Amino acid sequence: MNEFDYIEKFFRPLTNQYANNLKNDAAVFKQKNSLDLIISTDTLAEGIHFFGNEDPKDIAKKSLRVNLSDMAAMGAKPVFYNLSLSIPKEQANTFIPKFVKGLEEDQGIFDLSLIGGDLTSSLKYINITITIFGETVSNKSLPRDRSKIGDHLYVSGILGLSKIGLDNFNSDSKDFLVAKNKYLFPQPRIKLGMALVNVANSMIDVSDGLVQDATHLAKNSNLSIELNLCKIPTPKINILDQKTILKSALYGGDDYELLFSCNPSHKHLIEKISLDLNIRLTKVGVFKKYKEEFLKFKNNSSKPKNSYLHF
Amino acid sequence: MNEFDYIEKFFRPLTNQYANNLKNDAAVFKQKNSLDLIISTDTLAEGIHFFGNEDPKDIAKKSLRVNLSDMAAMGAKPVFYNLSLSIPKEQANTFIPKFVKGLEEDQGIFDLSLIGGDLTSSLKYINITITIFGETVSNKSLPRDRSKIGDHLYVSGILGLSKIGLDNFNSDSKDFLVAKNKYLFPQPRIKLGMALVNVANSMIDVSDGLVQDATHLAKNSNLSIELNLCKIPTPKINILDQKTILKSALYGGDDYELLFSCNPSHKHLIEKISLDLNIRLTKVGVFKKYKEEFLKFKNNSSKPKNSYLHF
Repeated sequence: MNEFDYIEKFFRPLTNQYANNLKNDAAVFKQKNSLDLIISTDTLAEGIHFFGNEDPKDIAKKSLRVNLSDMAAMGAKPVFYNLSLSIPKEQANTFIPKFVKGLEEDQGIFDLSLIGGDLTSSLKYINITITIFGETVSNKSLPRDRSKIGDHLYVSGILGLSKIGLDNFNSDSKDFLVAKNKYLFPQPRIKLGMALVNVANSMIDVSDGLVQDATHLAKNSNLSIELNLCKIPTPKINILDQKTILKSALYGGDDYELLFSCNPSHKHLIEKISLDLNIRLTKVGVFKKYKEEFLKFKNNSSKPKNSYLHF
Repeated sequence: MNEFDYIEKFFRPLTNQYANNLKNDAAVFKQKNSLDLIISTDTLAEGIHFFGNEDPKDIAKKSLRVNLSDMAAMGAKPVFYNLSLSIPKEQANTFIPKFVKGLEEDQGIFDLSLIGGDLTSSLKYINITITIFGETVSNKSLPRDRSKIGDHLYVSGILGLSKIGLDNFNSDSKDFLVAKNKYLFPQPRIKLGMALVNVANSMIDVSDGLVQDATHLAKNSNLSIELNLCKIPTPKINILDQKTILKSALYGGDDYELLFSCNPSHKHLIEKISLDLNIRLTKVGVFKKYKEEFLKFKNNSSKPKNSYLHF
């Protein structure tokens, strides 16, 4: 099979009307005055974002979900995506069918379709780039830079699980099953993101660790966050000590929970959203006037460290 | 420097208002009822699409231009793009500043800006994915599948130069200077593409060789193309025989000329566009009813072969 056969057989069935059966040089999207188009890109590189020996179906799901999480962080409803896959020649015929199966399953779960992309060979490693598109009512997407002094900082779900899953990926202990599952299959908080439009002031998804992403939120509004370490929602894993777990929550990546600021007056509304969606929402900090640091720990003199950096 | 520093220092100056200074999880684009958004993606993988030892500035330009050529093929005006760059850690600090310089120069030439993307490390090779966005008046983009029986097939410029440039990239002969330049710096035919809206029936850019791309055009309209080999516009290169040159024109890739079908009645209009834009437009074939083959050579019994295939 050559690339045109792969596209025809495997990728074309994943498309919607904008793709015109992948027959053109580009997709054609009809614009609508009342909506904003929200556009984001995330790449997964073999050996950096995934091992390479995972089931291709799982790699596909992770690729889509990290992108979906960016839509959640904007409060947007995801509608379609664009995929570029670079893969060594000799892997194509085993990888692509399984990879496409993963895309297909997640398209069903998250109600979205493929509109185009590129399929090329690569010398040695797999590289997957997805550009995802979502929509919001005009001017209603949630930015990172509109937090105000006195805002409360909330986070969804629990933090650190994914890093624990990654660190113990080859362990046979049942204690790590949930963590490994979270590492493999992030749960983009799309419904929550959409529910927080008109409620949150700023929002980001926690992909690089709580400390790093909270620092982004603070920095972008030129404020300081006081983070309450006693309140961080962490998992209970019997064979790990609390210090390891908290470290994973603060500096581990890949949680894909939502971190957002909102006016304290929205307390009851937040509780209602949490109940309606059955998602834990925890107040973990407060926004203060910027003074020397973007992030400090409440009643704790230790200094925040760096999370994973690519360079 | 970490990835946030690179983004802040090098990529942020390339952005427009939709990017909001790259401070959000996504770009926010205001939709307009009267326009279609045209979306396309092309990836360049090290060792496949480029050697790796070229000037990073040239790699940047090629990455943008192959994408711009897709906009040209749709008759669209390019407006912004999204970039994902995966690069080995140890190359980042030498590669990125030069790469960005190339983007900056071409942004000026082609009047477009960056709206977002991703910057990650990779284990060994560079991978560049650009998603480009253009606009046309609603329903006016040019597809690949609306050719009609009797349509004439035209191609812009001359064909084969880029392949000759690639094949002789390490030659010192001055005879290959123009060819090498064409290989490094494709000239996306944007103005031509826009001028052909309402004139051409179908259009494609010649990125995989004339034979392969003409076959796409024929196949997508379920017609057959009779290609006149005597009419193919080829370069004059003294130290190469005519057979080698014609082979490069038919099967070599990376020409990024436009190949389009139009009603024979538009002959004079085509001549006028050619004069106005100072771009050679040559009639190279005719569309006929499909019978056994999508592409055949006029008065020549030899069979078309395959161009480069990734898999």
